[in-house]
Amino acid sequence: MTDAVIDLSSMRPRALLALYSQILTELIRRRIVWSRNAPAGDYAELLVAEAFGGRLAKGSEKSWDVRVGNELLQVKCRVVDPSSKRTQTFSPFRSFAFDRCVFVLVDSVSYRVTRAIQVDRDLVEGRASLSAWVAGSRLTVRNVLAMTEGVDVTEALQRAQDEVDVRGRRADRDQ
Amino acid sequence: MTDAVIDLSSMRPRALLALYSQILTELIRRRIVWSRNAPAGDYAELLVAEAFGGRLAKGSEKSWDVRVGNELLQVKCRVVDPSSKRTQTFSPFRSFAFDRCVFVLVDSVSYRVTRAIQVDRDLVEGRASLSAWVAGSRLTVRNVLAMTEGVDVTEALQRAQDEVDVRGRRADRDQ
Repeated sequence: MTDAVIDLSSMRPRALLALYSQILTELIRRRIVWSRNAPAGDYAELLVAEAFGGRLAKGSEKSWDVRVGNELLQVKCRVVDPSSKRTQTFSPFRSFAFDRCVFVLVDSVSYRVTRAIQVDRDLVEGRASLSAWVAGSRLTVRNVLAMTEGVDVTEALQRAQDEVDVRGRRADRDQ
Repeated sequence: MTDAVIDLSSMRPRALLALYSQILTELIRRRIVWSRNAPAGDYAELLVAEAFGGRLAKGSEKSWDVRVGNELLQVKCRVVDPSSKRTQTFSPFRSFAFDRCVFVLVDSVSYRVTRAIQVDRDLVEGRASLSAWVAGSRLTVRNVLAMTEGVDVTEALQRAQDEVDVRGRRADRDQ
């Protein structure tokens, strides 16, 4: 496979949006993602499942994303733009019915995993702050990077990225 | 400008994601969108501002998206995949502090606006159903298409799409 170099500057807005849509269709076709939302969330769940030999939750499951044996993992991904000075926050927790959470940071240009940290539920619940606006509890990227109790799983997820690039998806969906 | 035809099937997953990211960067550079979220939401707000000669809300504004004179408009966009049988829902309303809502449906392949309907706040609030899970009120695409009291603004938004394609963005941000 080759990495095409494409000149986007000559394309009209709607052509850019159509190409964006075509990319999602291709990623869905290969089961790298399964929704037409921004792809980082699904992709991070896949990487966690591939890295730990887990199974992806069924679409109806709201409180966890990947099952590894009897352990239920929540996955939270944030695409990080290193040039941005704004506070970066993970999507809200609306349930803590999981065993661990894997926080995944992805570089906004290369989509390389730059950091992945696995944290026990109690710690996540204790550190998250309630937001009435979104009816959930939130953690910033800074909060998570300060959790020295977490387990660094960056290398395992980077290896999964390389494997998925070479041989595609293997992880199954939960029964 | 030309519409490039690109063979995505030979690209690896991470190259596809990097191209996806590059497209967002290009759209942000031209101010067609302003976040790295899925682009349909920002794009629909821009089209409403262009179509009605309005101004886009500042980023901190949570209850409306476009101001046209003294009128505050909320914009809700849904990318519609015609092959999907699932119930399609707009993102939740967490405030009704606006005058009208413009619901915009966009084709998932071409990003053409297929339908745009402007509806008064009271009607929106009356028809939306509360969802405790998201702490907001929701409307499905079907709900909105059944609102015969709405004003069809499809052509105005399609014209704005064509204009933005040719001459780029003109709409300013609110002061």
